[in-house]
Amino acid sequence: MKSTIAVLGSGSWGTALSIVLTDNGHSVRLWGRRKEQVDEINATHVNRRYLPDVKLSEHIHAVNQLAEAINGVKTILLVTPTKSMRDVLSQLRVHLTEPVTIVHASKGIEPRTSKRISEIIEEEIPESLREAVVVLSGPSHAEEVSLRQPTTVTVSSKDSEAAACVQDLFINQYFRVYTNDDLVGVEIAGALKNIIALGAGISDGLGYGDNAKAALITRGLAEITRLGVSLGAHPLTFTGLAGMGDLIVTCTSVHSRNWRAGNLLGKGHTLDETLEQMGMAVEGVRTAEAVHYLSEKEGIEMPISESIYDVLFNHKNPKVAVDELMNRDKRHEYRDIHEMYSSKIHKE
Amino acid sequence: MKSTIAVLGSGSWGTALSIVLTDNGHSVRLWGRRKEQVDEINATHVNRRYLPDVKLSEHIHAVNQLAEAINGVKTILLVTPTKSMRDVLSQLRVHLTEPVTIVHASKGIEPRTSKRISEIIEEEIPESLREAVVVLSGPSHAEEVSLRQPTTVTVSSKDSEAAACVQDLFINQYFRVYTNDDLVGVEIAGALKNIIALGAGISDGLGYGDNAKAALITRGLAEITRLGVSLGAHPLTFTGLAGMGDLIVTCTSVHSRNWRAGNLLGKGHTLDETLEQMGMAVEGVRTAEAVHYLSEKEGIEMPISESIYDVLFNHKNPKVAVDELMNRDKRHEYRDIHEMYSSKIHKE
Repeated sequence: MKSTIAVLGSGSWGTALSIVLTDNGHSVRLWGRRKEQVDEINATHVNRRYLPDVKLSEHIHAVNQLAEAINGVKTILLVTPTKSMRDVLSQLRVHLTEPVTIVHASKGIEPRTSKRISEIIEEEIPESLREAVVVLSGPSHAEEVSLRQPTTVTVSSKDSEAAACVQDLFINQYFRVYTNDDLVGVEIAGALKNIIALGAGISDGLGYGDNAKAALITRGLAEITRLGVSLGAHPLTFTGLAGMGDLIVTCTSVHSRNWRAGNLLGKGHTLDETLEQMGMAVEGVRTAEAVHYLSEKEGIEMPISESIYDVLFNHKNPKVAVDELMNRDKRHEYRDIHEMYSSKIHKE
Repeated sequence: MKSTIAVLGSGSWGTALSIVLTDNGHSVRLWGRRKEQVDEINATHVNRRYLPDVKLSEHIHAVNQLAEAINGVKTILLVTPTKSMRDVLSQLRVHLTEPVTIVHASKGIEPRTSKRISEIIEEEIPESLREAVVVLSGPSHAEEVSLRQPTTVTVSSKDSEAAACVQDLFINQYFRVYTNDDLVGVEIAGALKNIIALGAGISDGLGYGDNAKAALITRGLAEITRLGVSLGAHPLTFTGLAGMGDLIVTCTSVHSRNWRAGNLLGKGHTLDETLEQMGMAVEGVRTAEAVHYLSEKEGIEMPISESIYDVLFNHKNPKVAVDELMNRDKRHEYRDIHEMYSSKIHKE
């Protein structure tokens, strides 16, 4: 069945996902804040700022008014930065009259509250107006998706039927969608990989090689897994598309904002200089702050994330940070995760 | 305690590991087959063919005679290609008089027998001459190790004390060594990642992007994990240094032989043309053959490895192979691995 979907966020990822949806025969109302951008997309069928090389379907209709975007739709796709999530949701709440399925494709954790995006959605949208909350995540540069290059993602929800419906909405020949019933894991993996991407950039910025970067990614994923399992996630999610898959794309691509920010830090720039030079949001910086408090609260040791936090906020020298990480106590690779997880399985 | 170690194999990896050992105060007898290379190393302290830019310690003594290399040593490090493993071991057996610890740093599976390297060692060296068998594996370009760039590896053995001793032999400021008690998993992960590296090269050769490659690596690791768990491995090993870590290094580096061979295949060359152009052993090709039979025997579905096998040996068009992989039945990311493993834990 073909439907109309409201896509909230007209950056590169929102636009790329709109292309997938219209390729599948659906119609999209693409909500953007800037009137000029909306008018330009409707006039030229090109999102010049974010995906200048791709002609958009005429079934993507850009709108400037949130009420117009969501009018009568059964599915809303949220593609807004974590920072403005509550703001967009509070506007959304005002205009909703019928329950909708809310899919989000954002990656972050709220610094002050340590909340995941689906938790923020549940707080801001009353249950009577929510059919289901679904996350879509995975290794996916928007540019490649917009060029119909082979891409895989995973969708997850507390409501497995809703996840299957969202899988059906998006899946096609070049966009392969898996399901995963571990919502906590998918959201934690997607958010925390941005911290490790900062670290990978720092390592490259210091002039270290592929071995160091692979170590950082692998041991970084191990500590993310520890935190995730402590919060109720399944360890295998972290080996999947939202975990390892997305980490690989983010840490080995010069397109990644977080990697680029890390690279500047590794070359000796301060956080302020780095953020100024980037000129846009770097999710990993805010996530590092959130995780600093969250890992303390959960009592989980996260040496790599903590070192990156110190580089970001406590002027720690990046080279000293890497050297310290290399010279910690000798240890087993995964015994701690295994024990946390086996005891959970035994209780099942 | 400082000791003398026999390193069998004077290529780049054997030489790099010899550098780590001599940096730690040990002495090395580096065995090479070619008399001229041995003489040159001893005269110049440079391994000109494999690591031309690094000056070797005078405590690395190259030798041409196996009997001389192993005379009186307690530890032997095997760094020979899988192909010549049995041959070297049968020579070794003749000269051994006292039990030794055999560490191997090779990555492969024997095609005809589907045996892992440690199994081959156990078959060829009588128990009375073996103290322990240990594997050393992880994301480690030899060139970077030889330049003392930060590197992490894992060691594993049925004998955890022996693994800890080998950890102590190698660990230092730039070479961080973890332990892992899952010998089967470490060996399977190290061998099978070469098949996925071929696949990553094919994807890049076809002109596909980072999303496709990350998908291939992630889903490739999932199927390697399925086979490994079926053979008795721990699933978390595949998320570790010998699994994901090594995969990242091998699949994202143009230095990797397997990636380069895959890249040529993706660009339309036949296997014969590819191997001729490479001019050296490509472990992934032989491993793909071994895994083709092994997965059938174990009844494990391995669609990516099987597609690569077909590209290698059945003239399958690489683009058709990727398209078919993108359009398989919809599925859950890891439910099968979880079920295999939970039932194992429940039995414990």
